[in-house]
Amino acid sequence: MHRFIDLSHEINSKMPVYPGTESPIIETVCTIDEHGFVERKLSMFSHVGTHLDVPAHLIKEARSLSSFDISNFCGKAFKQELSDDLTPEIIQNKIGDLGKPDFILFTNGWHNYWQSEKYFSDFPVPSARICEFLADLGVKGVGIDSISIDRVENTKLINHHILLSKNCIIIENLTNMSALPASMFDFFCFPLKIENGDGSPVRAVALI
Amino acid sequence: MHRFIDLSHEINSKMPVYPGTESPIIETVCTIDEHGFVERKLSMFSHVGTHLDVPAHLIKEARSLSSFDISNFCGKAFKQELSDDLTPEIIQNKIGDLGKPDFILFTNGWHNYWQSEKYFSDFPVPSARICEFLADLGVKGVGIDSISIDRVENTKLINHHILLSKNCIIIENLTNMSALPASMFDFFCFPLKIENGDGSPVRAVALI
Repeated sequence: MHRFIDLSHEINSKMPVYPGTESPIIETVCTIDEHGFVERKLSMFSHVGTHLDVPAHLIKEARSLSSFDISNFCGKAFKQELSDDLTPEIIQNKIGDLGKPDFILFTNGWHNYWQSEKYFSDFPVPSARICEFLADLGVKGVGIDSISIDRVENTKLINHHILLSKNCIIIENLTNMSALPASMFDFFCFPLKIENGDGSPVRAVALI
Repeated sequence: MHRFIDLSHEINSKMPVYPGTESPIIETVCTIDEHGFVERKLSMFSHVGTHLDVPAHLIKEARSLSSFDISNFCGKAFKQELSDDLTPEIIQNKIGDLGKPDFILFTNGWHNYWQSEKYFSDFPVPSARICEFLADLGVKGVGIDSISIDRVENTKLINHHILLSKNCIIIENLTNMSALPASMFDFFCFPLKIENGDGSPVRAVALI
């Protein structure tokens, strides 16, 4: 029996956004009474809410959404708890048990602080050494349940650069991670097909 | 061996939109030189490009995106060529051969006219009787490779009302339909998680 787990935050005008980013605006532009149907106009930055980054987000002349085949946005995944003593060797052992994943979804538990001030600070992130290991392993992507895979004060975005420079995509602002099993599962994060996009909001979904 | 087929049009400012709808605006609001990263602001109507409709699009107090479980947006699907002599009985026979689908994706070939004036007129749509049959059958959704499942001149949107009133979602502006096989395949159309949304642009994908 299949079971779906929605790993995505709801998009609304009050959602937390990265410092400096505008909040989404959702305007009703057509109504049933006047037009016979409802239509909304969505205005949102490309990295708002549950979203993914591709190399063009940080690197000049690097790959945009248009150059990625759709198969890059789904595959086998496992969840990995983040802690200060996590090492590539621990992940390597897990791969020995579960098999090589296409995606690793890190959880630091910060999705529980969504809509609070704490969401923006102090969240654990993987070390640069772990990111190098995963980029060299050739995984399709790395996810995390906080607003960034780099600390907000790390303006050099080191983990982003390590991963994106090897065409490993990054999925941020995941949620509902405690619903994920310890075993491997299928993961989907199909982006909108934005021409030459640097990233896209996504509906991130696990299939158990 | 799995194979993915992308059934989605690219989103850009020159894409054809439903008469009266604004074209998407994609503005670059952050640059690598100035901010260290690229970010774009997307402004688009909720039913632009490859997208889906939920009942709240047309019916007051009806179900919005927020009330649909994620499992409603994927499942088994088959393709059905549209012609004037298509009947519910023909579809019923196909179901006898292939099994009951979660989605039926109609093709009238109009995706070939994307970006031309012809895209907006004369496209075949399923009859109201076919839509009633599918809504009563309880499929999750019905797709089509033209801008609407009703003719543009049909301002009463009869097919929309028949399907949406029974919580059958509608996926419009599909493309690349000729790549789909005659057999059953997996279909994904996960929408953005827009609070109380009436619809959403989607990345529609088939897995063969």
